Amino acid sequence: MAGRKVLIVYAHQEPKSFNGSLKRVAVEELSKQGCSVMVSDLYAMQFEPRATRNDIVGCLHNSEEFNYGMETLEAYKRGGLSSDLIEEQKKVQEADLMIFQFPLYWFSMPAIMKGWMDRVLVPGFAHEFPNCYDSGLLKNKLALFSFTTGGSEEMYAKGGINGDIRYLLWPMQHGIMHFCGVKVLAPHICFAPEYVSEEKRKEILIAWAQRLRTLWNEEPIICSPEWYFK
Amino acid sequence: MAGRKVLIVYAHQEPKSFNGSLKRVAVEELSKQGCSVMVSDLYAMQFEPRATRNDIVGCLHNSEEFNYGMETLEAYKRGGLSSDLIEEQKKVQEADLMIFQFPLYWFSMPAIMKGWMDRVLVPGFAHEFPNCYDSGLLKNKLALFSFTTGGSEEMYAKGGINGDIRYLLWPMQHGIMHFCGVKVLAPHICFAPEYVSEEKRKEILIAWAQRLRTLWNEEPIICSPEWYFK
Repeated sequence: MAGRKVLIVYAHQEPKSFNGSLKRVAVEELSKQGCSVMVSDLYAMQFEPRATRNDIVGCLHNSEEFNYGMETLEAYKRGGLSSDLIEEQKKVQEADLMIFQFPLYWFSMPAIMKGWMDRVLVPGFAHEFPNCYDSGLLKNKLALFSFTTGGSEEMYAKGGINGDIRYLLWPMQHGIMHFCGVKVLAPHICFAPEYVSEEKRKEILIAWAQRLRTLWNEEPIICSPEWYFK
Repeated sequence: MAGRKVLIVYAHQEPKSFNGSLKRVAVEELSKQGCSVMVSDLYAMQFEPRATRNDIVGCLHNSEEFNYGMETLEAYKRGGLSSDLIEEQKKVQEADLMIFQFPLYWFSMPAIMKGWMDRVLVPGFAHEFPNCYDSGLLKNKLALFSFTTGGSEEMYAKGGINGDIRYLLWPMQHGIMHFCGVKVLAPHICFAPEYVSEEKRKEILIAWAQRLRTLWNEEPIICSPEWYFK
């Protein structure tokens, strides 16, 4: 949809990887629609994942005992967060949709992307009690987790050895995005692309482009335990 | 139990924090029992959470297209992982029990600890298909997730707004530890210590020391979807 703004937060070390291809397909397809696309290429940016005192410019609110949540809230309010965080927060603020593109590492996102969540979505900016969940400060935005797995679809089926893939989506979709008020679109999961033919990989990329064409008509998922654990 | 070896992987920026106190209590109590205690204080070590090419010393197996899993497997086999990873793997290898001590960040561990999982538990060392889950390469070890929350116990109850806390433990306990063959003891959860009295906080620390006294008699939890999602 022309005019919409999309932020792709991307975490893969290798541009030639399948995640790299998925990211490129999204940039191309969304640009073609007239969307304005921003990309945070975390490894290329050498994005800092560690939540430390360095995220606060100038004096601490309480220099006796460092509390990251409290210090980032205070720093956010006085404009005293480090410039890399302010930069990312601007992109989030502008975005109508955030796409997180990554290979699944240990039933979750890679640490570099978890660090983006830990450091960018600070209190005051993304949530501030009681403004969480449906009244989170990032409401009216959409998010979509797009990722590749090592394991097969069968392994992530309800009776599979890894358990239903919904289970591992819970912390990311409910615990992070829903908590900030963001509505979540159905995840886009590419199972085990390393183990399929080149032709099949091309089909997967085409399917992703096709989904993106009608993405703006999709309804968000119901972010509830009933949906995840039915 | 005298002679047992324990690795505490600890992620808090502030030694005076409640997590710092929980870590100190564990070191004291376990040492008193005659255990040998190793601590990986991740922020103090400035532990690197990013999984990159820097983790491989010397030439890559495939320099055309970087694949972290494949490169770390090959590097592990030839002793070519970076020294910080070899150091951590030695501690894991020695440990009978690993305690992960951290504040819950976004329904999960802080990025610096997720980076420890991503980078230390590489294929070849911690698992190698089909040696995963009950035949994972770290079998005969125990793990325990000990963490603090911002939210109250009610918020993490089954009908609570955050959902049953078991749900968010799934990726860590099943997806990481069980996958590597490690048996998991019941989590130790301190709900919202920031919002209780100093006296109550002391009681919580005493309760942790008391649990540690009989820890070696505990049976691991059943790491199955039925346990998590009942």
